[in-house]
Amino acid sequence: MSQETFASRRVLITGGMGFIGSNLARRLVELGSEVLLVDSLVPEYGGNLFNIDGIQQRIKVNISDVRDEYSMKYLVQAQDYLFNLAGQTSHLDSMRDPYTDLEINCRAQLSILEACRRHNRNIKVVFASTRQIYGAPDYLPVDERHLLHPTDINGVNKMAGEWYHIVYNNVYGVRSCALRLTNTYGPRMRVKDDRQTFLGIWIRRLIEGKPIEVFDDGRQLRDFNHVDDVVDALLLAAGSDEAKGQVFNLGADDPINLRDLAELMVELNGGGEIRFVPFPPDRKAIDIGSYYADFQRIHRTLGWAPRIPLRKGLAATLDFYRTHAARYW
Amino acid sequence: MSQETFASRRVLITGGMGFIGSNLARRLVELGSEVLLVDSLVPEYGGNLFNIDGIQQRIKVNISDVRDEYSMKYLVQAQDYLFNLAGQTSHLDSMRDPYTDLEINCRAQLSILEACRRHNRNIKVVFASTRQIYGAPDYLPVDERHLLHPTDINGVNKMAGEWYHIVYNNVYGVRSCALRLTNTYGPRMRVKDDRQTFLGIWIRRLIEGKPIEVFDDGRQLRDFNHVDDVVDALLLAAGSDEAKGQVFNLGADDPINLRDLAELMVELNGGGEIRFVPFPPDRKAIDIGSYYADFQRIHRTLGWAPRIPLRKGLAATLDFYRTHAARYW
Repeated sequence: MSQETFASRRVLITGGMGFIGSNLARRLVELGSEVLLVDSLVPEYGGNLFNIDGIQQRIKVNISDVRDEYSMKYLVQAQDYLFNLAGQTSHLDSMRDPYTDLEINCRAQLSILEACRRHNRNIKVVFASTRQIYGAPDYLPVDERHLLHPTDINGVNKMAGEWYHIVYNNVYGVRSCALRLTNTYGPRMRVKDDRQTFLGIWIRRLIEGKPIEVFDDGRQLRDFNHVDDVVDALLLAAGSDEAKGQVFNLGADDPINLRDLAELMVELNGGGEIRFVPFPPDRKAIDIGSYYADFQRIHRTLGWAPRIPLRKGLAATLDFYRTHAARYW
Repeated sequence: MSQETFASRRVLITGGMGFIGSNLARRLVELGSEVLLVDSLVPEYGGNLFNIDGIQQRIKVNISDVRDEYSMKYLVQAQDYLFNLAGQTSHLDSMRDPYTDLEINCRAQLSILEACRRHNRNIKVVFASTRQIYGAPDYLPVDERHLLHPTDINGVNKMAGEWYHIVYNNVYGVRSCALRLTNTYGPRMRVKDDRQTFLGIWIRRLIEGKPIEVFDDGRQLRDFNHVDDVVDALLLAAGSDEAKGQVFNLGADDPINLRDLAELMVELNGGGEIRFVPFPPDRKAIDIGSYYADFQRIHRTLGWAPRIPLRKGLAATLDFYRTHAARYW
């Protein structure tokens, strides 16, 4: 993939005002793309107008919902690339309301792909999948040969959403691939509450001077990618023909347990309190234990590896939210 | 599982007037169960009133669609067992109309499970899954450690439907398991056209004295279960606590290629013509090549193995349709 791959190309990003979508949009603007964002701005999800602060004049925004078949049918036309990032991402919400999760993570994905098949078969699609579809790992690190056995409805629906993309690639030639993202962090993530990720609420509470909570003994391992590294992976996947029909794990070389992560964040914040609390039953029932990924497939195929060390990335993220707290609380 | 497991127990079968459902109902009536069938009788699917000929007075029938959340909410109550067999089974139809497949194979499954969770958490559920979710095998025979990589939308949606059951088992304690059925044949299968299985239309055309079609050279291997063996497996799975949360392949020890199968059927029919024709492109695009299953997991766990030899089962099946042609054409 050269610098020119995206220059003057038309790029559609679903979930474009969300965390990853808006960081991707910023990069694409730098690369000279014509960027169109689609976002529903559903308040509980990740879209935030401030996420596109400073690039508003250089992009187009269409407020609509990926569940709206008619708007999507129109919006995919004449696009060169589609980064398909819109999704319901809360595991707990998917258990409380499995139908909404189904509509967004399954049905809307089908209708986006149908729109591509019927109206723009030359588009290239990258789908944001998730490590959640593996469920509780049978072995570590988890590679792409690991069985899929999700622990919650969100995981089941994301699994289906991912495979719709692969089927449309294989049967209809709508070039598509999927990245199975692990924990992603960085500027513009949702930190308002603990709906999507514990890391967001930790950031907010540390900055607010409130204690952060670690469930049980915090020995579960996780790997973390800075959003800039995830943006690299999205661009590499879109820019390479070798990606089509493939699924790729993202991941990091330095998994860390949640207790150590909490301590690191307190240190980087210059203070803070950690409380160890019992696992809430509704979370425990869908918890996956330790997880970290083997990302050799994308490394070998597309040359991707994360570049931003956790310590450095977290420090910059805390700085971002200290400056912009009012926009994200 | 003893003979008494199902005596005087209340059993709900979705898709109960279909091929497998009606054969299961007949067995359960013999075992003394109180059987309630749910079927939509959608003309293109497998439900057929003649399938319950002779047992009508000993069962209850409720005509409704599993997509009807309200009827299902009522019907699952006070049942001891649910055999969840209703589904859209045509691979080609799932590609032409992915939304209907989604509604039946995903959304309806979720609403059935929600009904069980909210209104009858003591029910035991057996879900009819399918080998289709494996896609084109990476190795043969295919065991349950084989990755799921379906080739069509039906496969993706059945995969999701299966995993909803496992998630509701693991998270909510709604005891559920899934059998991954391979090609099933026998009396009461749909033979009207080639929508569900080539075997049905072969039976009809042989009896009608018309040629049967084998795609390409017919070297693809398949394994076949007689429906009575599948009924055994369903009952064993429902009757054992060791099944809960598990997925099990069904299969047979004697895979056969489609060319040999066609010749066997011509022989059993006492005549017939076989035509070798090119694979239709829409079928080729979702074909899985050779497939046969390793069914050791269910053999070890539940003691199941198929008992009916293919030759004997097919001969009896041809006899059945010769006698009852008018009811199935």
